[in-house]
Amino acid sequence: VQLVASEGTRIRERYGVELEIAGVLVRDPVRERPGVDRRLITTCALDVLDADCDVIVELIGGVHTAGSFVRRAIARGRDVVTANKALLSACGRELFTMAERAGVALRFEASVCGAVPVVRALRHGLAGDSIESIAGILNGTCNYVLTRMEDGLDFATALSLAQANGFAEAEASLDVDGEDAAQKLRILADLAFDAPVRRAWVTGIRGISAEAIADARAAGCVIRLVAEARRVAGGIEMSVAPRLVPRSDPFARVVDEQNAVLIRGRASGELLLSGRGAGSLPTAAAVLSDVLECGDRSRHFATDRAAVGLGAEV
Amino acid sequence: VQLVASEGTRIRERYGVELEIAGVLVRDPVRERPGVDRRLITTCALDVLDADCDVIVELIGGVHTAGSFVRRAIARGRDVVTANKALLSACGRELFTMAERAGVALRFEASVCGAVPVVRALRHGLAGDSIESIAGILNGTCNYVLTRMEDGLDFATALSLAQANGFAEAEASLDVDGEDAAQKLRILADLAFDAPVRRAWVTGIRGISAEAIADARAAGCVIRLVAEARRVAGGIEMSVAPRLVPRSDPFARVVDEQNAVLIRGRASGELLLSGRGAGSLPTAAAVLSDVLECGDRSRHFATDRAAVGLGAEV
Repeated sequence: VQLVASEGTRIRERYGVELEIAGVLVRDPVRERPGVDRRLITTCALDVLDADCDVIVELIGGVHTAGSFVRRAIARGRDVVTANKALLSACGRELFTMAERAGVALRFEASVCGAVPVVRALRHGLAGDSIESIAGILNGTCNYVLTRMEDGLDFATALSLAQANGFAEAEASLDVDGEDAAQKLRILADLAFDAPVRRAWVTGIRGISAEAIADARAAGCVIRLVAEARRVAGGIEMSVAPRLVPRSDPFARVVDEQNAVLIRGRASGELLLSGRGAGSLPTAAAVLSDVLECGDRSRHFATDRAAVGLGAEV
Repeated sequence: VQLVASEGTRIRERYGVELEIAGVLVRDPVRERPGVDRRLITTCALDVLDADCDVIVELIGGVHTAGSFVRRAIARGRDVVTANKALLSACGRELFTMAERAGVALRFEASVCGAVPVVRALRHGLAGDSIESIAGILNGTCNYVLTRMEDGLDFATALSLAQANGFAEAEASLDVDGEDAAQKLRILADLAFDAPVRRAWVTGIRGISAEAIADARAAGCVIRLVAEARRVAGGIEMSVAPRLVPRSDPFARVVDEQNAVLIRGRASGELLLSGRGAGSLPTAAAVLSDVLECGDRSRHFATDRAAVGLGAEV
């Protein structure tokens, strides 16, 4: 909502489209939401899903409720923009097939690495090349915790600091156990490879001690939670695990809540993309770029008012 | 040609399209071109421009002849993919307007930073954000020369080595005088900013001595040719100039013929993209991705044979 307001003039001049928010679905209607027109707020999903709008933006998270909303939006011919990695990781293929049959767009740049345009890079930028491997620091919470442990904090203190600074949820187990990184890796691997998963394993950072960090330092290394998918005989191997990374490695220089992805293409060589992987503004920028590309693709709101339905529990 | 052959099966399976090369325009028909069907080779431009094909790929370089070919292709309703930074830098706005009126695509990912998808990142990935600045190492030849000078070579020897290794043309003045980087910067700035250029200056690396490199090292720095465009009062300021860069800076780690671009968005924060900025295979991968996206956009060859006309003097 904030970006639609601040970027509205530029978007109108450049893309010839006036973005209008048609409705905002929330769980708690009482909470103060500065800048949001109260008349747009509703707790009834159908008010937004069945509103007269061009694009539905799903920022609810979770698999079941969000999934039923996305399916209804697609069935009603709406383009959908989502930042929901859990949903795409669980039933992405089904939803993409459904969207393709309905002739609508399903965009999800914000689901992996916030504003870092890695989804676009894999979908379009590297369409002409065969991808050999993808490796990334995909979870900002874990990277923040590991960086603070390099400053001498123990795991629990570093995690509390991450929570106090808003880089980690109160319930951080999806992050620190590696599941969040694994979901993002699955989304990237689906984009990059047309091959079955042969092996997959996920280890988080919960067991990492201050001693392990000190030992790594003594060896000229740091520890990073690296998610990697690569071609092996007969398919793909996927792993999320803490790794010893030499200080000269590009991943060693990814600090705090930053994210980075290294893509190796057969013809393109190595590409590194890095930036802020989380936070409300980078995520909003990625969502808004997706909304604008929906219009660009279908041209159905290229010269007119585009109404956006927004489902968000913030 | 090589990539269309090696990636053909994957492209058919994934995108449902069979790419076929309809003609190849060259200057020298006698030269050996392994893998190219001799019957496709012609020295007559109209054989390719007026062939029954969906996309024209322009890899000729230069402004005048290439420009007239691109205009004719657009006028005949063909999508165009080009890697020609000189052409776009000189008359990009005219060509984009012409392509838009004709309802065809004009794609140019390969014109800046080879396979690094920075054009896509600015066109689409950051469409929802206001760009504040772009800074990059955009010329691989200069970066290779500067990196070799750090090893103790003087400018002339480092340049000869670049030429011997195929990273620099025999006539390297466009590279070492900064004009190549300036052309690429103009293309990126056109994508990022809707504002007039207030100031612009270009300095190359020709005057840099072995002593300057040693002085930089003593100060904990390296020298990099940095191209930057940023918002100033009333417009944009563009510069290409050698800069002292601290060893901890991301640009200091860009070595040899690598390229890198740092984009600062108001909401997105800093994004870094880096990779191989030149070379035939990375360039070909970027061109082929653009060709595939032409089909994706217009869907006019989504289920069929797509014929590609190729103008290339290699």
